[in-house]
Amino acid sequence: MNITLKQAQAVIEKAMAKAKELNTKMNICVVDAGANQVAFVRMDGAWLGSADIALKKAKTARFFDMPSGEIGKLSQPGESLFNIEHSNGGLISFPGGIPMTDKDGTIIGAVGVSGSSVENDHEVAAAGASAI
Amino acid sequence: MNITLKQAQAVIEKAMAKAKELNTKMNICVVDAGANQVAFVRMDGAWLGSADIALKKAKTARFFDMPSGEIGKLSQPGESLFNIEHSNGGLISFPGGIPMTDKDGTIIGAVGVSGSSVENDHEVAAAGASAI
Amino acid sequence: MNITLKQAQAVIEKAMAKAKELNTKMNICVVDAGANQVAFVRMDGAWLGSADIALKKAKTARFFDMPSGEIGKLSQPGESLFNIEHSNGGLISFPGGIPMTDKDGTIIGAVGVSGSSVENDHEVAAAGASAI
Amino acid sequence: MNITLKQAQAVIEKAMAKAKELNTKMNICVVDAGANQVAFVRMDGAWLGSADIALKKAKTARFFDMPSGEIGKLSQPGESLFNIEHSNGGLISFPGGIPMTDKDGTIIGAVGVSGSSVENDHEVAAAGASAI
Repeated sequence: MNITLKQAQAVIEKAMAKAKELNTKMNICVVDAGANQVAFVRMDGAWLGSADIALKKAKTARFFDMPSGEIGKLSQPGESLFNIEHSNGGLISFPGGIPMTDKDGTIIGAVGVSGSSVENDHEVAAAGASAI
Repeated sequence: MNITLKQAQAVIEKAMAKAKELNTKMNICVVDAGANQVAFVRMDGAWLGSADIALKKAKTARFFDMPSGEIGKLSQPGESLFNIEHSNGGLISFPGGIPMTDKDGTIIGAVGVSGSSVENDHEVAAAGASAI
Repeated sequence: MNITLKQAQAVIEKAMAKAKELNTKMNICVVDAGANQVAFVRMDGAWLGSADIALKKAKTARFFDMPSGEIGKLSQPGESLFNIEHSNGGLISFPGGIPMTDKDGTIIGAVGVSGSSVENDHEVAAAGASAI
Repeated sequence: MNITLKQAQAVIEKAMAKAKELNTKMNICVVDAGANQVAFVRMDGAWLGSADIALKKAKTARFFDMPSGEIGKLSQPGESLFNIEHSNGGLISFPGGIPMTDKDGTIIGAVGVSGSSVENDHEVAAAGASAI
């Protein structure tokens, strides 16, 4: 099963509401189960460079079925996945990407958020993911 | 001046309404005056490969401040811009990309649509652009 | 629904049998519904350059849910999709890529074949697809 | 001398058997002496992002004729090959890639495995390589 556009837009709405609550400006991207982009928004004034990061965070979360930041813990110097970011056309391995599942636990897509601190990025992504 | 997210979402809403009226499934992308993505949707069941094409049509329209199909007329074999599609990481030079201006005629962004015939793609893009 | 590895291997087995029957050496690739590679073989002595072509044919067939050669008819000079090949990191728009559906008509993946004439490539792909 | 498809498939069979024994889901790739892909499988449910990593591990192992993890020891900050991963379109320098030799010690290809811990990836790759 794949995320629908309606679901993806609900994710983005909830993420944007959280972003405003935190007084941040975010790029928010949703990909489907095949890691292909379904929906995207860049809030007015958000960093231009964060658009690609939001996409790559969403893809990274779906590529490995875990929050993007989990990959980053293992990709530090000396850790087991050092420099994994060179794969798949470029991963982003810090927080802000979260996989999303249906009620049966099947992964149907992922959300990626970028534009503020990684703590805020993750919080906004989590708010978005809660829409599913 | 740049297109706002609110404007971009209005473009997408109008484009989606036209796409449904034509019984098509579209990928719709809006870029700003810097040719950077502002908003994107892939309607359920739309071609996966049209996501990148919608983005490239929007970028092409803004890169040269004319509808993407105008570039295509000049990029045919023997014409003056033959194979211009090799530039800028890949252009798409058939119809479906349209620049958008504010009331003073300044270009504030562009919309790109892909998912059906180029005639439908252009009509949906034009419907979207009419929101501005 | 996505193609399984078992199904993908059956596709490759049937395609290889046809390739041998035609006395050709092929690269054969199967992608899933998300256009991600599931299985691949390069027959001994097959063209090295055809590996990427087989993958791109399979992706192209899934990106637009039609045989890759159908795209090529529309991408000729003067036709409506001229130079569409510049999208999606490079399409291959001549015959040899075929989408595959389950018994309900849902697309579950695609097969791409390259290594001989496009007629042979298509025939081998069709033989492979018949395994589903 | 180059690995044959029959040999590559034997490598993949043995690797898949070990992957199942370890209760893991792997992407497994075999490249030839020219570092070109010969065969690939993604086991059902294996990480999408590990397909490219399996390929890059196999290439890395053949590019430098040593297990991929050996490169990773030398690419740490302050070490002599720091950030070598930027070359060749992206290397993967953690364990899971192993070169394979014929009975005379000539390298005929390499196997790359990704989908679990690097210890499991390496063990599955080693099981595959033992088929030669």
